[in-house]
Amino acid sequence: MSQYPADVRIVEVGPRDGLQNEKALVATADKIALVDRLSDTGLRTVEATSFVSPKWVPQLADAAEVYSGIARRPGVAYPVLVPNEQGYARARAVGVEEIAVFTAASEAFNRRNVNASIDESLQRFAPVLERAAGDGVRVRGYVSTVLGCPYQGEVAVADVVRVARRLHAMGCYEVSLGDTIGVGTPARARTMLRAVAGEVPMSALAVHFHDTYGQALANVLACLEEGVAVVDAAVAGTGGCPYARGASGNVATEDLVYMLHGMGVGTGVDLAALAAAGRWLASLLGRETGSRVGRATAAAADGDGAAAG
Amino acid sequence: MSQYPADVRIVEVGPRDGLQNEKALVATADKIALVDRLSDTGLRTVEATSFVSPKWVPQLADAAEVYSGIARRPGVAYPVLVPNEQGYARARAVGVEEIAVFTAASEAFNRRNVNASIDESLQRFAPVLERAAGDGVRVRGYVSTVLGCPYQGEVAVADVVRVARRLHAMGCYEVSLGDTIGVGTPARARTMLRAVAGEVPMSALAVHFHDTYGQALANVLACLEEGVAVVDAAVAGTGGCPYARGASGNVATEDLVYMLHGMGVGTGVDLAALAAAGRWLASLLGRETGSRVGRATAAAADGDGAAAG
Repeated sequence: MSQYPADVRIVEVGPRDGLQNEKALVATADKIALVDRLSDTGLRTVEATSFVSPKWVPQLADAAEVYSGIARRPGVAYPVLVPNEQGYARARAVGVEEIAVFTAASEAFNRRNVNASIDESLQRFAPVLERAAGDGVRVRGYVSTVLGCPYQGEVAVADVVRVARRLHAMGCYEVSLGDTIGVGTPARARTMLRAVAGEVPMSALAVHFHDTYGQALANVLACLEEGVAVVDAAVAGTGGCPYARGASGNVATEDLVYMLHGMGVGTGVDLAALAAAGRWLASLLGRETGSRVGRATAAAADGDGAAAG
Repeated sequence: MSQYPADVRIVEVGPRDGLQNEKALVATADKIALVDRLSDTGLRTVEATSFVSPKWVPQLADAAEVYSGIARRPGVAYPVLVPNEQGYARARAVGVEEIAVFTAASEAFNRRNVNASIDESLQRFAPVLERAAGDGVRVRGYVSTVLGCPYQGEVAVADVVRVARRLHAMGCYEVSLGDTIGVGTPARARTMLRAVAGEVPMSALAVHFHDTYGQALANVLACLEEGVAVVDAAVAGTGGCPYARGASGNVATEDLVYMLHGMGVGTGVDLAALAAAGRWLASLLGRETGSRVGRATAAAADGDGAAAG
């Protein structure tokens, strides 16, 4: 029998990675309510917003207002995405205590995404990481396109290892390995994670899967078997993927929690409260929830459930 | 690294388990076209229809016409569901060469589903299995509710083992273990399969998952790691679940094939042809495909794909 971790920390990325890729505009007050509802479920990390330029991500132009408005619960971390020193300054001006920086494992993707080589991106982050260290701000790092790239196709595992090692060496306490376009399958996810864990401690790694091809939860399972104990997810499966329109988003937090709890793995999350938050968000977005658990428990909540057939 | 089988045989159950639980009525000619399209993709087993009483399953009242109409490809098996001797006679009258019988692991479910105890169901099948053996007809057995029951809740692993062993002993060449209501998670699926494989050879076992809570593909992965090499699936994720309305159906064959091929596991299936068949079926049913691969590749087929973002 494979061993699974006793406890998994979920990094809820719905308010950032989810909303930045949704077409529907969400009011600032609703974004604040979303973060508060999520942190009330027992989640220990809720990525609150992004201080990327509003020109790039207009959906999150109200990052400062959102961050200022949330009710920060003790024991919950609220990282925000930061692209450069300007973003860092904006975030710090409203009291941000944890940030996330990002680069790709694919040169082609990084050039298209931020108009810089991977090395240039890392150089751009160096002063941010220095300032963060001086300010006592924790930094999470994202590596995107770890299992494939919409522009160059294959991404070498060695490239993922190199970028993850650099981010960790620069001071990121955790590096999240993201299959941005959702093309990966469990055996490749496992191979990639194992290779990175040869250079960066597994305790400093997280995995981040998109469900574009329905593989996200199976990929998470394979990675749990390799020993990872931090998993990114987005409530209601929000996110879509700007590189494959019509495709589905991040792995749904509800479905992940259902799996973990069913396997006896603790998360600290109240699944019923989480599913309710997901349904509320889906109604705000004017679409069906991307979480199967959200749908199944909605049917039950309508009195239309298990014994109906 | 976990070992996966080199090759998996997929039992396509869309034309039966899928359509019997879909609300939309499908014309007989379309059912025939569906089976033919599926067997053209390289699938080696396509469950064609059900000879259960039309009173119980009106959607498949045209079972004899469907079976008579399909173009039987050499090397492809076309099992049909048979509930009793009357069904067996109807099936044989149109030349059926393989059947499937079914019972539950849950007493409460079996009583509600067929108004008989599990032992009574098995006794009812005994003469069918005897006739099949005499006629050279192969028999597959289904055990439902192996990871939970909508009426009694928990289902003991020992009950699953007992029923699977009985079906195998009675002559079923293969026993499919079904999580009818989709509540199972990978660790429990693995434990259940391992227990059954202690009494029935793994080579005579298949797994059958519904995606009600989004767990189906992760459950398949866990079971592949245990050594199972036959997996049931339904094109376009058809099926729903009559015991949890609004819930999603069988694991989508497209998503399963994508995972297996991505892991280097052979299936013999042409994924592009399969995804096209799934989209065609979804359009017949007047709903979106339940396959994420179907959706993602539809976007690509519309010229709206990977490089669009």
